[in-house]
Amino acid sequence: MKLCRKAFLPLGFKASGMACGLKKSGKLDLALFYSEIPAKAACMFTANSIPAAPVILNKTHLAQNKLFRAIIVNSGNANAFCGKAGIKSSQDTVKALAHLLQVKKQSLLVASTGIIGRKLPVDKIRSAMPGLIAGLSQKGIHAAKRAILTTDTHTKEITVKFNVDGKAVTVCGVAKGAGMIAPNMATMLCFLFTDALIGQGVLRAALARAVEHSFNCITVDGCMSTNDSVMLLANGAAGNKIIKNGLRLRAFKAALSLVCLELAKLIVRDAEGASKFITIKISGAQDPARAKKISLAIANSALFKTAMYGENPNFGRIVAAVGASDSGVQEDNLRIKVSPLHKEDIVVSVDVGKGKGRAVVYTSDFTNDYVKINAEYN
Amino acid sequence: MKLCRKAFLPLGFKASGMACGLKKSGKLDLALFYSEIPAKAACMFTANSIPAAPVILNKTHLAQNKLFRAIIVNSGNANAFCGKAGIKSSQDTVKALAHLLQVKKQSLLVASTGIIGRKLPVDKIRSAMPGLIAGLSQKGIHAAKRAILTTDTHTKEITVKFNVDGKAVTVCGVAKGAGMIAPNMATMLCFLFTDALIGQGVLRAALARAVEHSFNCITVDGCMSTNDSVMLLANGAAGNKIIKNGLRLRAFKAALSLVCLELAKLIVRDAEGASKFITIKISGAQDPARAKKISLAIANSALFKTAMYGENPNFGRIVAAVGASDSGVQEDNLRIKVSPLHKEDIVVSVDVGKGKGRAVVYTSDFTNDYVKINAEYN
Repeated sequence: MKLCRKAFLPLGFKASGMACGLKKSGKLDLALFYSEIPAKAACMFTANSIPAAPVILNKTHLAQNKLFRAIIVNSGNANAFCGKAGIKSSQDTVKALAHLLQVKKQSLLVASTGIIGRKLPVDKIRSAMPGLIAGLSQKGIHAAKRAILTTDTHTKEITVKFNVDGKAVTVCGVAKGAGMIAPNMATMLCFLFTDALIGQGVLRAALARAVEHSFNCITVDGCMSTNDSVMLLANGAAGNKIIKNGLRLRAFKAALSLVCLELAKLIVRDAEGASKFITIKISGAQDPARAKKISLAIANSALFKTAMYGENPNFGRIVAAVGASDSGVQEDNLRIKVSPLHKEDIVVSVDVGKGKGRAVVYTSDFTNDYVKINAEYN
Repeated sequence: MKLCRKAFLPLGFKASGMACGLKKSGKLDLALFYSEIPAKAACMFTANSIPAAPVILNKTHLAQNKLFRAIIVNSGNANAFCGKAGIKSSQDTVKALAHLLQVKKQSLLVASTGIIGRKLPVDKIRSAMPGLIAGLSQKGIHAAKRAILTTDTHTKEITVKFNVDGKAVTVCGVAKGAGMIAPNMATMLCFLFTDALIGQGVLRAALARAVEHSFNCITVDGCMSTNDSVMLLANGAAGNKIIKNGLRLRAFKAALSLVCLELAKLIVRDAEGASKFITIKISGAQDPARAKKISLAIANSALFKTAMYGENPNFGRIVAAVGASDSGVQEDNLRIKVSPLHKEDIVVSVDVGKGKGRAVVYTSDFTNDYVKINAEYN
């Protein structure tokens, strides 16, 4: 398995990115990811009960259709909480793109990220489409990966290559994060591409597992968004023997999990205003679910996060968070170890008893810059 | 019913406050509240599974004993997460005080607030006790109410008077708040005194109800502390006919609830770094529990709180928080109304459907000063 911290699209994929005027700054705000051959898809969406329009539309397409050709993504506007008009905006986007690409509209997926509650100016997106399509290329991923960002300060990208019976297979991912990040995938978008030939059922299961141990193990501010989406396209262009089980599946799962975990960590590292990357390891809990609950209670504690920012060894705040997590941890069983606070990377290890439940979550600190960014973002 | 925003101790109560050296600043850090006649007590403590030593000791005393004489409170040290040594610190404090007051130690209650995980210097407290007792007076409440504070910027105090069959009855309360404030009572201490003659059972029930609608309806940072305590002493010195039910009980409950609610609001108003006082009103939920869950999801959203600080009409964050609250609210049913943001007091009204469930919670905004205070507090 070979890991590269740049995005290299697998065989048969192209991408493109441009500025269509959704962001006042004039920055890139429209991306297109395209597969030359129909691709299987696996997607996971936010658990928010008020999902954004693209999430709703994608679910319909995934229910109606088996093979997919492209994902169109805009930043600068979340197209969320816009009622029926929002659904129509996503539908209009998809309809125009299907016409230009000459594919059926159910073979398209769509994603939006940005401010909630503002009408999406579909005209701007529609006018930009011919140029967007003309720009499709393998190298276009470098514009596309920037076009999906909002308050991110850097791109999130990774490529993993591995072999299946001598054939090179690639898994590549790009993501956006920054704020409204919590388990159950808060405003984060992640687009994954592989040229692996793989069965539909195992593709879906592999993604669910990879997300559970990556994007669902990070939290920036405990805020779950309306738009979270992880989308994976697998077009089979690598020409490998189909991946269904055994060693081949194990290799694919390892590659996909690595891509997801590294992207998840990049999101935390670039969290809004963050100055620290904090790993919280829980051991000794009664079961893994309780371990995760405890780790998130610490990770989401504003007092813990501000203490980390201040390099302030006020570990009583960890005690208070563990005790408040409704997990029945007793004082006598609690052991806390924290690595040196002056470093950027901090590891907090908390042993809570004699159980076998373990969990690891990743989080950032709470800084003046977080407050500044979010007091002003509009 | 007459409300006064100053503390006036009811008949038969005295208090005293001084600096015993727990706070490096030399500020007041030791308080004593004393009833000249044995008083009934009702107490509510934190739901944190790692409670501080004073909470543990008080529970023993309340189980062993019916009538109480005094509460001793220190600030500057929480005496939490100190293991058996912590329990001994509280026991030693109580033992020394019982000896000097010539009462039995089970008739005393104790509270601590401040940093977690540091050994309580009991010697300093013990040395200060003779002076503390000598200083007891009705006016001593004004030193006592200051001695219980930590990062609070002002005192929290209130007095309500009402009549029971022509006899004047007083309910007076003082509290401390500032940070680690969340439902289930985070680091907040509240001491309530009444000269009402009242039955033990109704006293306890009245307190539980008043706390549910006051201290359990506020949140500053979603952090539940190890030390939260609300303690109410009722010494019967008013000479009223005993309060057991009917109109008398209704009057008492109204007075107690008013005292608790006003103190709870004062805590939010003086939240660490806060610049806004925010009332969140939920209506239309399926039931009151769900309404409260939704209101707290908004109140604890870092993104909502920073938006309020920035007077930033980014109401999508309210939508995201409601949707993330796991309450099944649907987009079509959501109506949000927010009062003008440039004012100090903001009311957020959210109607979530056709149900009868309502809730009101009070919270503060998230500011640079909150981060600064908590990055440095140690």
